[in-house]
Amino acid sequence: MKPLILITNDDGVFAPGIKELTRIAREFGDVFVVAPDSPQSGMGHAVTLNSPIQINDLSSDFEFPVYSCSGTPVDCVKIAVHKLLPRKPDLIVSGINHGANSSINVIYSGTMSAAIEGAVMGYTSIGFSLCDHSYKADFKPGAPYIAKVIKYALEHNLPKHTCFNVNIPKGDNIQGIKICRQAKAHWDEELDERKDPRGGTYYWLTGVFNVMDKGEDSDEYALKHNYVSLVPAQFDLTDYKMLEKLNQEFK
Amino acid sequence: MKPLILITNDDGVFAPGIKELTRIAREFGDVFVVAPDSPQSGMGHAVTLNSPIQINDLSSDFEFPVYSCSGTPVDCVKIAVHKLLPRKPDLIVSGINHGANSSINVIYSGTMSAAIEGAVMGYTSIGFSLCDHSYKADFKPGAPYIAKVIKYALEHNLPKHTCFNVNIPKGDNIQGIKICRQAKAHWDEELDERKDPRGGTYYWLTGVFNVMDKGEDSDEYALKHNYVSLVPAQFDLTDYKMLEKLNQEFK
Repeated sequence: MKPLILITNDDGVFAPGIKELTRIAREFGDVFVVAPDSPQSGMGHAVTLNSPIQINDLSSDFEFPVYSCSGTPVDCVKIAVHKLLPRKPDLIVSGINHGANSSINVIYSGTMSAAIEGAVMGYTSIGFSLCDHSYKADFKPGAPYIAKVIKYALEHNLPKHTCFNVNIPKGDNIQGIKICRQAKAHWDEELDERKDPRGGTYYWLTGVFNVMDKGEDSDEYALKHNYVSLVPAQFDLTDYKMLEKLNQEFK
Repeated sequence: MKPLILITNDDGVFAPGIKELTRIAREFGDVFVVAPDSPQSGMGHAVTLNSPIQINDLSSDFEFPVYSCSGTPVDCVKIAVHKLLPRKPDLIVSGINHGANSSINVIYSGTMSAAIEGAVMGYTSIGFSLCDHSYKADFKPGAPYIAKVIKYALEHNLPKHTCFNVNIPKGDNIQGIKICRQAKAHWDEELDERKDPRGGTYYWLTGVFNVMDKGEDSDEYALKHNYVSLVPAQFDLTDYKMLEKLNQEFK
């Protein structure tokens, strides 16, 4: 039996990025798409608790099963595995995101949260992102690298509860893949303040991305030098160094 | 000058839990409340990118500044620090959440994501949760422990980029505080499937919490034995063990 590959994203079921990821994944197995019915960028690890979740079967327009979901990327993974897939998935892939999810963006990203949810459930999972926000971004130069990572993940027994965060530099000058750690970086927020027609204040969240990391082993360094970055990611947030210190100091 | 304490939550600005947290925090400094205008449970680290964010000044009803925010808990922290607070906060506290945020719930929780966002920004931050979902939950037995943790955080120079995830057992038989690691656990989803009046299928996300961890140093173990659990949490998701393995194996 061919491997079963669940595909999701956060840009929505009709985004060009998920089409390209599906095209690549079909070389490796039977694909099954369950993705949000509308853009869900920045949804992080949100789950839909206070409203019901709708599913629509769009498969008649495709050569493989495609479902849209009114919920978040994490909801998509949960519903796909528990209600829609014919069997347990061999691989969960999320993306290709329109825009980078390197360094701290891993915690804001719906694309990566879907991959992390896959890892929480114990499935081999990968999030793919292209460092280009454009709807018309060129996904082609990254395709061989995506294929390589999918092949590796399917052929190796990856540890449960670890997923891959793969970011692809923009342009066609890609130098290869580097295994990296998450760079130290954050967003310097700039809240764009405006007045509505009734005089009320509202804000648009925007900002400048600030990389504070000088290390050559970080994902930001790899991307800056035109390498695809691959960060193995897990979800135990415990700060073990601080735990030890607190055990001595906190009385 | 008294310490400035920013207070937020995910249950909304009028929830009993944030009222109790504010009451306790006022013993230690000047409080400033910026919290969602509606419940935001399960919002994880979501940020509002595709719509503007509204702020309402409710301070005239209180003895201290209180703002409601149409965005997520993470939005609240960003807007508070960048637009509303008179100076940089000395401490950010989030909660008291109505319901546990122990173990894997840290990644789904809006309450904890607000604390993690504080840590990303470099501020000392703490999320507090009571293991009781009820709106009428009794927050009183946990109050002395919350006070103790706030006092410790204000008096010690905590490392930047680490926050505390504090969970309080239900009831009045609390044995003390234990420093813990995040337990290995996950939700076994049960999607409650229903038909809408037009025959469409929809789902409610629900589930059973499954603790797979036998360790006596985990937060779930502490809570089960009526201890308050304190997990120091950070946001570098890199799996360093897997990174090393991939550096050898991935060619």
